[in-house]
Amino acid sequence: MQTAISAPTNLDHTLLALADPTRRAILRRLSGGEARVTELAQPFAMSLNAVSKHIRMLERAGLVHRRRVGREHFLSFQPEPLDEAAAWIESQRAMWTARLDALENLLLAEDRAAANPPPRKETADEER
Amino acid sequence: MQTAISAPTNLDHTLLALADPTRRAILRRLSGGEARVTELAQPFAMSLNAVSKHIRMLERAGLVHRRRVGREHFLSFQPEPLDEAAAWIESQRAMWTARLDALENLLLAEDRAAANPPPRKETADEER
Repeated sequence: MQTAISAPTNLDHTLLALADPTRRAILRRLSGGEARVTELAQPFAMSLNAVSKHIRMLERAGLVHRRRVGREHFLSFQPEPLDEAAAWIESQRAMWTARLDALENLLLAEDRAAANPPPRKETADEER
Repeated sequence: MQTAISAPTNLDHTLLALADPTRRAILRRLSGGEARVTELAQPFAMSLNAVSKHIRMLERAGLVHRRRVGREHFLSFQPEPLDEAAAWIESQRAMWTARLDALENLLLAEDRAAANPPPRKETADEER
C-alpha cells in the first residue's frame, strides 16, 4: 500500500517551530509572561524583521498568540501544541522500550533454559 | 545582553528531522526492527532518491544508524536523541504549569481574603 504525501500537519508545524534556538528562546521568555515584539527582539543580535519571521512561525504552529491593543502587539505563549509533540515522542520511546523488554525476556528465557537443561535421553541411558 | 546566533545544535537537528510525516513514518517502521533502504521506500509514493534524502536527515540527527554488509545497507532506529527533545518540551510544559499554579494560588488567596475581610474600624465605631 502506498502512503500519500499530505499537506503539513499541526505536528509538523510545531516540531519545525521548535527546531531553532532563537524560537525556543522566545518561547522560554514568553512562558514567563506576555511581551511586546520589541521586548522579545532586544536580547537577540538580529533585526526586528528577522525576529518577526520567527514569531510568525511560532504563531503558525499555534505556540504564540498575538493580542493587538491599538498599535501595540502583545505576544503570549500557548502550550497546547506541545502536548501532541510530547505524545508522539513518548509513543516512539514506549515502542522502543517495549521492544527492548521483549528482547530482554527472550534472553532471560534462554539463560534459564541453559542453566536448567531438560534431562537428555542419552545422559539417562549412560547413568543406568 | 545579546544572544549570539549559533550553529544548529543536536536538538535542532532532532526536531527538524521529526518535523515531517514521511520521516516519522520511517522511524515508526524502524522501531519495529532493522530494515533495508528499499524496504523503507516501498510504502511511500516517492522516488528512492527522495526517501534517501529523508534517511540522511534522520542519520544526521542520530536517530538512524546505517550498517553496511557488502552492497546492502541496513538501517536501525536510535532512540537516544529523543531524550533531549522530550526533556526540552517537558521543561517548557513544567514552567507553564508552575506559572498557572502560582496564578491559581494568587486567585485562591484573593477569594479567601474577600470571604473573610479583616474587621473594619468604621463598623466597630458604628456599633458602639
